[in-house]
Amino acid sequence: MTADAATIRSTVEAYCAAFTAGDQQAYLDCFADGAWIDDPVGAPRHEGKEAIAAFFSTSQSMADSIELRSTGPVRVAAGEAAFPMQARPSIGGATYVVDIIDVMTFDDAGKITSMRAFWDPSEMRPADD
Amino acid sequence: MTADAATIRSTVEAYCAAFTAGDQQAYLDCFADGAWIDDPVGAPRHEGKEAIAAFFSTSQSMADSIELRSTGPVRVAAGEAAFPMQARPSIGGATYVVDIIDVMTFDDAGKITSMRAFWDPSEMRPADD
Repeated sequence: MTADAATIRSTVEAYCAAFTAGDQQAYLDCFADGAWIDDPVGAPRHEGKEAIAAFFSTSQSMADSIELRSTGPVRVAAGEAAFPMQARPSIGGATYVVDIIDVMTFDDAGKITSMRAFWDPSEMRPADD
Repeated sequence: MTADAATIRSTVEAYCAAFTAGDQQAYLDCFADGAWIDDPVGAPRHEGKEAIAAFFSTSQSMADSIELRSTGPVRVAAGEAAFPMQARPSIGGATYVVDIIDVMTFDDAGKITSMRAFWDPSEMRPADD
């Protein structure tokens, strides 16, 4: 049975909160075993929880902290989801921003089975809000 | 060679403008031969220009007009794109709204080869803006 929309929205919320908090265990708990991520789309795939943990560590090491801030509703369709947000890394007191859309699939329990992140690293800019 | 970001953004803009104008020919011109659309994700696929033309006619017949209004930047990654918008059908003087994210792939010339629309028909509501 496909995970329902409320379960999927709850996973998306937990995923953004865990990444923002820098909480690796809570982040990994959002994923199913064997999950994979393309972040950004076009970059080499990170497959399996060990690879996703390494990706998390590398990402977090690039800034003092990184907020994932929602910029609109999560769209759920047929057990998949897409949602718009900003990644906002803080580095040495300065905050930067880049616009992202994540597209995710889920297993029956609402764990993420795949994530594709649409964004362009060259569009990272100083935040003005 | 993958279509560049400027070409992809131009196609997305033309696609939204053509749908909003109810201009079937301009809409079809945005697609490559053999393109397919899932709209919404989970519904039966419309494959090929003839099927896409029929989908366009059916969609347009459901309202007096349907505006596709951007609600944030187009995210381009590795020759694919995702963007947030609202579909805003006007029916008998009333305007309704639903939030959508379209995910598209493109050929080398920047024509759409596939489109997956993430939205939930049950979330259609009267517009308050």
